[in-house]
Amino acid sequence: MPKYQDELDAVLRALADPTRRAVVERLARSPAVVSDLAAPFSMALPSLMQHLRVLENAGLVTSEKHGRVRTVSLRPGALDVLHLWLDEQRTPAERHADRLGIHLTRANAKDT
Amino acid sequence: MPKYQDELDAVLRALADPTRRAVVERLARSPAVVSDLAAPFSMALPSLMQHLRVLENAGLVTSEKHGRVRTVSLRPGALDVLHLWLDEQRTPAERHADRLGIHLTRANAKDT
Repeated sequence: MPKYQDELDAVLRALADPTRRAVVERLARSPAVVSDLAAPFSMALPSLMQHLRVLENAGLVTSEKHGRVRTVSLRPGALDVLHLWLDEQRTPAERHADRLGIHLTRANAKDT
Repeated sequence: MPKYQDELDAVLRALADPTRRAVVERLARSPAVVSDLAAPFSMALPSLMQHLRVLENAGLVTSEKHGRVRTVSLRPGALDVLHLWLDEQRTPAERHADRLGIHLTRANAKDT
């Protein structure tokens, strides 16, 4: 699956920077206008815009301009590719623990 | 939490390379000796060793030498830092869907 691998490359590279992760963390709460996103960082606006472009190219965020205000949002399902890859890496022991956890949750639900 | 952020930087950078991800995918199944790890890649051994060093520095793998054979393992909990970060980014809508899922699983368990 080369497309999936390229997507993973782009997402992981985009997230391997603490400023870009902080932007994603902020947008996971709600969309934000660019000036509000810039506020917590002591960073020139062009630098922030460059980080936003990397996030947009990786498919992590989308943005829309209304008049002079650009609003940035986390793309729904943006991190799915990473969730999927991580799930695939669960070791046999971890899968066993997961099944046991589901079993115990169900047994517990029956008791209550 | 600067240490957590540094760890995330290193893990994400290490995983943003398809060869290193393939090594992690292989090691998630079981530990492997270096020559077996090298086999599926048309890559000189020194290049593979360099990828392994990046993975080791990021805390993703450990290796042990017995005689002339080096065995590489995925470090238990190696990907926890990434699971943790991803969980923190769940949007309010996703958290709501999770709670609904747990509720339905429990309701279903009661019915059976």
